[in-house]
Amino acid sequence: MNIKMVLRTVGRISQIVALLMLFPIVVAIIYSEKRSLVAFLTTAAISFVVGMILLLIFRTRNRVIYAREGFAITALAWIVMAALGALPFTLSNEIPSYVNAFFETVSGFTTTGASILTDVESMSNSMLFWRSFTHWIGGMGVLVFVMAIIPNITDRSIHIMRAEMPGPIIGKLVPRVKDTAKILYLIYVVLTLLEIIVLSLGDMNLFESIVHSFGTAGTGGFGIKSDGLASYSSYSQWVITIFMLIFGINFNLFYLLLIRRFKSVFKSGELWSYIAIFAVGTVAITANVMPLYTNFSEAFRNAAFQVSSIVTTTGYATVDFNLWPQFSKGLLFIIMFSGACAGSTAGGLKVARSVMLVKNIGREIKKMLHPRSVGTVRFEGKAVDEQTLSGVNTYFTLYILCIFAVFLLICFEPFGFETNFTATVSCFNNVGPGLGGVGPASSYAAYSDFSKIILSVAMLLGRLEIFPLLIAFSPSVWLKK
Amino acid sequence: MNIKMVLRTVGRISQIVALLMLFPIVVAIIYSEKRSLVAFLTTAAISFVVGMILLLIFRTRNRVIYAREGFAITALAWIVMAALGALPFTLSNEIPSYVNAFFETVSGFTTTGASILTDVESMSNSMLFWRSFTHWIGGMGVLVFVMAIIPNITDRSIHIMRAEMPGPIIGKLVPRVKDTAKILYLIYVVLTLLEIIVLSLGDMNLFESIVHSFGTAGTGGFGIKSDGLASYSSYSQWVITIFMLIFGINFNLFYLLLIRRFKSVFKSGELWSYIAIFAVGTVAITANVMPLYTNFSEAFRNAAFQVSSIVTTTGYATVDFNLWPQFSKGLLFIIMFSGACAGSTAGGLKVARSVMLVKNIGREIKKMLHPRSVGTVRFEGKAVDEQTLSGVNTYFTLYILCIFAVFLLICFEPFGFETNFTATVSCFNNVGPGLGGVGPASSYAAYSDFSKIILSVAMLLGRLEIFPLLIAFSPSVWLKK
Repeated sequence: MNIKMVLRTVGRISQIVALLMLFPIVVAIIYSEKRSLVAFLTTAAISFVVGMILLLIFRTRNRVIYAREGFAITALAWIVMAALGALPFTLSNEIPSYVNAFFETVSGFTTTGASILTDVESMSNSMLFWRSFTHWIGGMGVLVFVMAIIPNITDRSIHIMRAEMPGPIIGKLVPRVKDTAKILYLIYVVLTLLEIIVLSLGDMNLFESIVHSFGTAGTGGFGIKSDGLASYSSYSQWVITIFMLIFGINFNLFYLLLIRRFKSVFKSGELWSYIAIFAVGTVAITANVMPLYTNFSEAFRNAAFQVSSIVTTTGYATVDFNLWPQFSKGLLFIIMFSGACAGSTAGGLKVARSVMLVKNIGREIKKMLHPRSVGTVRFEGKAVDEQTLSGVNTYFTLYILCIFAVFLLICFEPFGFETNFTATVSCFNNVGPGLGGVGPASSYAAYSDFSKIILSVAMLLGRLEIFPLLIAFSPSVWLKK
Repeated sequence: MNIKMVLRTVGRISQIVALLMLFPIVVAIIYSEKRSLVAFLTTAAISFVVGMILLLIFRTRNRVIYAREGFAITALAWIVMAALGALPFTLSNEIPSYVNAFFETVSGFTTTGASILTDVESMSNSMLFWRSFTHWIGGMGVLVFVMAIIPNITDRSIHIMRAEMPGPIIGKLVPRVKDTAKILYLIYVVLTLLEIIVLSLGDMNLFESIVHSFGTAGTGGFGIKSDGLASYSSYSQWVITIFMLIFGINFNLFYLLLIRRFKSVFKSGELWSYIAIFAVGTVAITANVMPLYTNFSEAFRNAAFQVSSIVTTTGYATVDFNLWPQFSKGLLFIIMFSGACAGSTAGGLKVARSVMLVKNIGREIKKMLHPRSVGTVRFEGKAVDEQTLSGVNTYFTLYILCIFAVFLLICFEPFGFETNFTATVSCFNNVGPGLGGVGPASSYAAYSDFSKIILSVAMLLGRLEIFPLLIAFSPSVWLKK
């Protein structure tokens, strides 16, 4: 393991955190929020110094990155980002407990949106901005961002991209990793700006439009009101429904649109499966919740919003779906697992994996009936190789195992099965709200510090798709030369 | 598909149901329970006639069985057994609703032990006997029994055995399938007799000893008291704890003991993992429930009993563990999935599969770090071939998918998440009790007929390990020549 190189990169990440503080600093100046301003400036200073120290101590010219280093950099980068990013909340005393602030920041960067705030309206604007901004940064991946802006990055960095980007198959859009990262970020920025503009045309002011666009783009879900998006107009709710769905699409497809390969987009099996999950979920829930609403359009709007929010693992809510009938709650719970498309900003298993898993079952049945058949699983027009398939299957097993382990560890709480189990599933899939005591109208505030740390780990495991963290923290990886 | 041959076999199974009625008939005569006697005699007559009709209509000399026929025979045999086996309960009016009787009988044959009875003490002795006897028959497999007793069975029947026997790998102990079936049944009978004798030495009378031995041997869990086994002595509770564990061991190991291959038994990875799960579960739960009991031995006895009962998917209870702390409940919930050893009478995933799944994750991590490595998964001293491994992975995925589907279908009930979700998991893994509204002190009586049928399907899916039912009910299988 090239430890020096790994820690140098972590140092650079710290300095980038310092850089990122510029954004909330501007907001704090605009709203003349002095205490927040001091907190952000202090954090910027600390982050810069920590980064400087790491860069000074660990010197090496060896820039070679293998899979091992890719995993370690990814895991450490995310933890350091969250640890530093949590400082402003505690320094400003807006979230006095550092564990709470850490939970909130991990939830931000991992685009989960689970919150420990019980009175979000009392937060300063600049803190609310920073909180939502973490979603936006985490959505596309902190390291993809780094790769896009840092000069002299080698093509070995595909190992980092592979470790950080969600989904079963990572493709480069263009030969150079750096260019791929740049294209992805460009699409991301343009789509976010578009949403800000469209939202400003409705009943949201500019600040609200920006904050909610960050939350949508990163499929995060942090809002600025206790009742989520309930008090906004149907227009705003529909705009967000549609943009959540857009940000749940594989970004490669947007690139294909840009280079006018419409046919490839149209033939994407993952896209159609994703649309099908949304459509079936919305129809089923609309039918189920009809009796609760005065008219069809209200039931349909709320069903579509909630399904879009859960399938994209965003976690915004326009109603307290915890009060919906069991069937709707059960369906939303199951949709939490599928997640949206691979290569999007969403969490969860990803539709690509779900489709492969189901197709693989079909193949197994064929094999049982015709033992000599050589079935292949086809996806996006190509035969999926056995290694990818076995990787997807193994990932699913590990994913369920991790959910069980996290669930068991947060069981030392005075909450019931529904609360603990759905909190685990929701955090792990980076959704945000669960059912029962962690429903959209509640928060994670009541959990103990121990459970908050466990759930923070769950969010990181889910966002980084388990392996990077698991590998980065196995001692054998660090000891080997 | 050799439909004639399949339906002929189903006809023979019906006649075997008629034969099995002899046992409760004897019990009904001993206790002079007239109404029950009539019910059993009528059922015997109906079963015999149904079997006769099938055998007369479907005539063929073609006895060839392929995988397809094996699955179809298995699926239909189990459904017909349950449909006929439910008749005595309804005919005697002891369970007036046929859907309830069907649920109870499926629960019996699949060795689940989930009950719709709210007042089990009011049942006649012969009905209680029949109810527990279904566990005993279902435990070793109805068709293995058929193979052991029907003459002229060809070696093609391995396809039936493969479809019915639980676990990822089916081995024949001796070259002929028929002899393997006989040996397995002999071990089963001897162990059951042994338990009856040992239990009779305590505070159970002969009837109680027999009924509880059936429930233990089949890892079923039907009892004869509303409070389960709470009112019996510690002696009886410990005896059952140990016998549940014994019946959760792969029967091949008992055969190896008989032929004095002690070393092979001692080196069984599955056995040691199984013991480890039991030991860790018992220690953790003992520590967690200590404050609820007056002394260590009481806490330890109850923890050991409940863990043994859940890991073997039996479902007996000495306490209402629904009142235990969340951690203990959560742990029991997770243990429901693992199940006991393959080739035992238990349900669940089976320890063999769980071990392979975990080892496969280890291999995947190695592959990620060293892409050119050719890792193999070793189990019971041998390298597991890729096809078995992929089969185990696929089975796990399908298993989780089925649990989600069943859960969603029973969500049209006025019960909460905990009740519905654990009811699904418990029925699917053939355990019996769940948490919340289906805890050990409650019953499944409150579910609607629709949900009871769905849960019956879940129990069958779990017992037959999904594929046979799935394949038997896909139209393409029946249409193909």
